[in-house]
Amino acid sequence: MTRAIYPGSFDPIHRGHLDVIECAAPLFASLVVVAMYNPAKSAGFFTLEEREAMIAESVAHLPNVSTARAPGLVVHAATELEADCIVKGIRSASDLDVESQMAHTNKAVTGVQTVLLPAEPANAFISSRFIREITKQGEDVTALVPAPVAERLRRKVVSAHD
Amino acid sequence: MTRAIYPGSFDPIHRGHLDVIECAAPLFASLVVVAMYNPAKSAGFFTLEEREAMIAESVAHLPNVSTARAPGLVVHAATELEADCIVKGIRSASDLDVESQMAHTNKAVTGVQTVLLPAEPANAFISSRFIREITKQGEDVTALVPAPVAERLRRKVVSAHD
Amino acid sequence: MTRAIYPGSFDPIHRGHLDVIECAAPLFASLVVVAMYNPAKSAGFFTLEEREAMIAESVAHLPNVSTARAPGLVVHAATELEADCIVKGIRSASDLDVESQMAHTNKAVTGVQTVLLPAEPANAFISSRFIREITKQGEDVTALVPAPVAERLRRKVVSAHD
Amino acid sequence: MTRAIYPGSFDPIHRGHLDVIECAAPLFASLVVVAMYNPAKSAGFFTLEEREAMIAESVAHLPNVSTARAPGLVVHAATELEADCIVKGIRSASDLDVESQMAHTNKAVTGVQTVLLPAEPANAFISSRFIREITKQGEDVTALVPAPVAERLRRKVVSAHD
Amino acid sequence: MTRAIYPGSFDPIHRGHLDVIECAAPLFASLVVVAMYNPAKSAGFFTLEEREAMIAESVAHLPNVSTARAPGLVVHAATELEADCIVKGIRSASDLDVESQMAHTNKAVTGVQTVLLPAEPANAFISSRFIREITKQGEDVTALVPAPVAERLRRKVVSAHD
Amino acid sequence: MTRAIYPGSFDPIHRGHLDVIECAAPLFASLVVVAMYNPAKSAGFFTLEEREAMIAESVAHLPNVSTARAPGLVVHAATELEADCIVKGIRSASDLDVESQMAHTNKAVTGVQTVLLPAEPANAFISSRFIREITKQGEDVTALVPAPVAERLRRKVVSAHD
Repeated sequence: MTRAIYPGSFDPIHRGHLDVIECAAPLFASLVVVAMYNPAKSAGFFTLEEREAMIAESVAHLPNVSTARAPGLVVHAATELEADCIVKGIRSASDLDVESQMAHTNKAVTGVQTVLLPAEPANAFISSRFIREITKQGEDVTALVPAPVAERLRRKVVSAHD
Repeated sequence: MTRAIYPGSFDPIHRGHLDVIECAAPLFASLVVVAMYNPAKSAGFFTLEEREAMIAESVAHLPNVSTARAPGLVVHAATELEADCIVKGIRSASDLDVESQMAHTNKAVTGVQTVLLPAEPANAFISSRFIREITKQGEDVTALVPAPVAERLRRKVVSAHD
Repeated sequence: MTRAIYPGSFDPIHRGHLDVIECAAPLFASLVVVAMYNPAKSAGFFTLEEREAMIAESVAHLPNVSTARAPGLVVHAATELEADCIVKGIRSASDLDVESQMAHTNKAVTGVQTVLLPAEPANAFISSRFIREITKQGEDVTALVPAPVAERLRRKVVSAHD
Repeated sequence: MTRAIYPGSFDPIHRGHLDVIECAAPLFASLVVVAMYNPAKSAGFFTLEEREAMIAESVAHLPNVSTARAPGLVVHAATELEADCIVKGIRSASDLDVESQMAHTNKAVTGVQTVLLPAEPANAFISSRFIREITKQGEDVTALVPAPVAERLRRKVVSAHD
Repeated sequence: MTRAIYPGSFDPIHRGHLDVIECAAPLFASLVVVAMYNPAKSAGFFTLEEREAMIAESVAHLPNVSTARAPGLVVHAATELEADCIVKGIRSASDLDVESQMAHTNKAVTGVQTVLLPAEPANAFISSRFIREITKQGEDVTALVPAPVAERLRRKVVSAHD
Repeated sequence: MTRAIYPGSFDPIHRGHLDVIECAAPLFASLVVVAMYNPAKSAGFFTLEEREAMIAESVAHLPNVSTARAPGLVVHAATELEADCIVKGIRSASDLDVESQMAHTNKAVTGVQTVLLPAEPANAFISSRFIREITKQGEDVTALVPAPVAERLRRKVVSAHD
């Protein structure tokens, strides 16, 4: 029974992330989506609690997917959550360079294997950074996120316009 | 219980291939290494029977790994072998471009997901084509292949020297 | 008034090609889709006449788009058709390497500028080669092509099954 | 009549930028070079006024090219300047990954198409960041910039040496 | 008699760096490993003195390799150390994009040629940044560094645990 | 005293090749430009004798550069010519993937190190294949080749027009 983790900042989770989760969930006995945070840094656009809540609401239709939070490095999350496998989405040559290096480092330190899922094309361009920036400008990008995130973003847009 | 296939020409299987198999086997209930062939083309360097035998001997230590052969396209092999998942190794940006395109095409036609495993660095440079070319020149590259393949290559070297 | 050409083999034209045409057409006074052929090679999967007819039917809704055929190299087509600009779609790092080299060569010889359009994500994985291969196997990939091409492919599928 | 914008920081404009402008200008009815700035950040190496002035002087020989300034994101500049098209130069696989993602995001939000021009090889290595760093060290890189920029850089070199 | 320099931050030197040095040393009359620092920035994880000492200890078995330190840009180090050639390791497409741009810029300004050495596969994934982060977490990555560095890292681990 | 080889087909040598030779020659005691051929294949566009003659004429101004011919694989040429080092030019991510794999394979078999020289930007787009194709069409690309090659190409153009 293989246990996989999908680590990321998820600030906020978007449709590209959800694609990875929906592709990975049927392949493993369980999949834990892990909201990573750096205890030494400030809170982010959404708080860690908000981020984890939005993940939980977005994956409610997937019975073998759960959520967790973890500080620091993926190597620690993988060990602590007893993962057999780390899942990452991959869109481009730049992603491959970064993810390969991290995959080999994580394996050298913990022995945990990384598997890469090619991003679903239609949502491959979405990034959390862009969603945050557009929202700060008071515009609507709710089409790029799961429904439970859209509502929270709308409230941010309203407060940006005030 | 996830059933994965790892398709390729395997003419012959080499240490880079074996890395992928050893990394993937623990993640899935079963893994089938599939020697692909094109019925319209000639036999290759090793016959299909030789290739399948070398795979079987090279994976004998992995209880959930078996072998098969399949003609034509991976989409057909995936359907026929009732795969939940296609496994491929990935080494470089060029690999990513090719494998992403195939992954999306295979998914569009059959619904079967592809997962990419970053090649283990130490053997990432090995290719079957180079092994065949060097062997044809009468030289020894048996360090680059699993032990069961090395013996067969040695006989090819001897016959190349005759 | 800028006149652009979009050269390719189009054997057959598919949805990824049509995306490029629909994105490029509004930017130029006229756009000529050029079915390139090599007089020294055999006919291809579809004949040149079939390929040009399928292009013409697929772009019938775009008033400033026309079709042409040209033998040999793009540099000649660009000169003969008095193009101000060559349009190409681009999906990946491998595409960029090939297209940059061709763009600089074409400019060095003819002075004609190439512009690259990033492929629309949803159809970026489609290739004419895969459509031909799947069709030869007797399967249906008509969802990946414009409607006028689907009908012709269906007839090829039927004859493959006979 | 197609109206294109070419957005960037242009701190300062260099020969690689000028190549893009000279290649793009003949293809469109008008081309607006847009000096982007972030109202929340400090002024940069050159002030926004200096940057815009250097662009205007560098493109004075191109009758259909004008300049503008815009705060924030390219999506806003494209809407405000009523652009039909966004022009970007592209040099490498890393550029492609970044520009494709931005192109798809901009199109999803505003509908405006991006076209990529392969960088002219001879000047493809020049970056504004390097020009700033070398100038701060008191050295002369005026060969890498249009003549109107060279004079301003020379004055910066003198003051760096004082 | 060709004199090469190998510039970097080396904070700290790791096995991937040592691979580059051991591959490059036999090709040149002399090779100077240059610890670069930015006088305007703070000290780093190890001090410049520590970094240079660890380099010197790690290359003690290579008679034609020496060490130096240099502030600022590689172009200045190359000129000051009278280098005929700059050596860099290269692992990925992202590395190539960065290194090509720097190579052409350095050549345009100083005339000094850069040569790229493909990273030895087994250690290509190691980065100084990861070594620093893992060490800060109190874990042991001494297998990824030359022996003289391992001892110093162990002391850092102990102090992180205190 | 380091002895380098620069292997290739050189059918014909062009300005991009000459850039690599002129950059590499000052770095090594001697540099041998090796025209590789496959005894099992037909002659090519220029005969091996013509190719070697054109190389010799094009490098006549470089006292430490000589020419040779070699059948088969670079590993054999490197051993036979007692090379310390193999030199290759590199232009793109696709080149890097191919050259890295060959470099590691050559090193694993012979111990000979490969160094990669980033292509000089102005001529990086030139390929022998394109020169051959354009010449076959009866056009003039002599600006893309060294002077001694231009004369031979002109004669080919004349005969193509006859």
